[in-house]
Amino acid sequence: MDRNFRTMLEARWAEGKFVCVGLDSELAKIPQFLHCPDDGLSGLKDTIVTFNQRIIDATHDLVCAYKPNIALYEAHGESGISALWRTIQYIHKVAPNVPIILDAKRGDIGNTNDGYVKSAFDYYQADAITISPYLGREAMQPFLDRKDKGVFVLSRTSNSGAGEFQDLIVGDKPLYQHVAQHVAESWNTNGNCGLVVGATYPEELAKVRAIAGLMPLLIPGIGAQGGDLEETVRAGKNSLGTGMIINSSRGIIFASRGGDFADVARRETLELHNGITSSL
Amino acid sequence: MDRNFRTMLEARWAEGKFVCVGLDSELAKIPQFLHCPDDGLSGLKDTIVTFNQRIIDATHDLVCAYKPNIALYEAHGESGISALWRTIQYIHKVAPNVPIILDAKRGDIGNTNDGYVKSAFDYYQADAITISPYLGREAMQPFLDRKDKGVFVLSRTSNSGAGEFQDLIVGDKPLYQHVAQHVAESWNTNGNCGLVVGATYPEELAKVRAIAGLMPLLIPGIGAQGGDLEETVRAGKNSLGTGMIINSSRGIIFASRGGDFADVARRETLELHNGITSSL
Repeated sequence: MDRNFRTMLEARWAEGKFVCVGLDSELAKIPQFLHCPDDGLSGLKDTIVTFNQRIIDATHDLVCAYKPNIALYEAHGESGISALWRTIQYIHKVAPNVPIILDAKRGDIGNTNDGYVKSAFDYYQADAITISPYLGREAMQPFLDRKDKGVFVLSRTSNSGAGEFQDLIVGDKPLYQHVAQHVAESWNTNGNCGLVVGATYPEELAKVRAIAGLMPLLIPGIGAQGGDLEETVRAGKNSLGTGMIINSSRGIIFASRGGDFADVARRETLELHNGITSSL
Repeated sequence: MDRNFRTMLEARWAEGKFVCVGLDSELAKIPQFLHCPDDGLSGLKDTIVTFNQRIIDATHDLVCAYKPNIALYEAHGESGISALWRTIQYIHKVAPNVPIILDAKRGDIGNTNDGYVKSAFDYYQADAITISPYLGREAMQPFLDRKDKGVFVLSRTSNSGAGEFQDLIVGDKPLYQHVAQHVAESWNTNGNCGLVVGATYPEELAKVRAIAGLMPLLIPGIGAQGGDLEETVRAGKNSLGTGMIINSSRGIIFASRGGDFADVARRETLELHNGITSSL
């Protein structure tokens, strides 16, 4: 199948789906009964893959995207890398219409980024990636050149302490708004850019939406991080009433650590979906 | 052996060594005769590891550090990851006094960074890492907490287009100087921080050195990227005449693509070493 991130995403939005499930599948938090007897190299890989498969089976008809954070997989070296690869292949198989955003926050100088591009899009076969803006557009060109892939640039992140640099005032506005503006005005020539803005900062989210126009916003921070849903939807939607990828990770995948974890994950996903629908 | 990055680095500086060899071992640039007949999964791993071993054998008595850029390894998925792991183990074995800086430019929100910390320091067993400042100190605490490890924060990068955000004026000075100042004044409570500043911008390098005091500066951009060595040393050294990790990657490891590649890599390393010595 010819996969185009933006086309796939808009098709999910057209179905009224805005929830993104964050597959931040930290080994230590995976229900104990799923752990393979040997939690050594191949054991931990099987544990993570089995957990993810159950979560994907239970949620894929409700979501607009999946977003694995690669840090949780890299922690385990080769085995973790392989678990992530297998997870993404599984999504391609059982939910071929659901795009996959690799949360990697990458960024290096120009030719070095070719390595990250190959890793994200050719090895893992993700449909989109998150990148850090600090090195500037020229360096990020290898990502932007992949027209069929989505490139989400960090603008205002969801963590406490995010303002240390992001809120510094440059001229008449904070840095994160300059980032949003540069991305909207000069990075997005292929129409494949988006921005990352935390739900934990609804005022900042509204400012970024005003700059971003129709561009997709990837919005983490709902759920475990405590962002308010109604405010998030009000601030985050575009003029078409779409444009949002609202991510919850731990709030969904680790909502139960018992035998019912997949059912509970579905229930939490549905609740978030319904909350978004009624806020729109 | 109990490895402490700063102690190891200072011991190399005391020996007058300031060259860092960048192990950016891009498969396509590795001399053809080293390529394994099967450049499939295990073949490419062997090719990269063999190449790196030859470079390490030829240079380890001359350097203050090695710096593999993880992007070039991630490009090949699991096999690349394994090649990097094996390369680092080899350095531990044949050059146990030479610290390894993992050039990864990582950075996520707080608890997620635990995954990157485990990957860099526990899985790969690197001695230091490069990180991106955009998310702020609070998020980077998991890196900073590893007192024995070095944490190099991007300040002014060596790429063209680096100024897009790094040169934006905040108050009375550009953003990259704010980053340097925050790191020097509030991130470095464990004395394990350093800054990354490109040799391609000697004026900016001098400004960062003025802010950084004795802190180590990791200085890429010499060699293939065209930074001037004498200017770099003048601007980059600290008041003790040390403090520099001067990196060359392609200019050393790919100086020859023939059967003499390791000898030529040694010659280039020695030339850089001598150039630094005579500039000091």
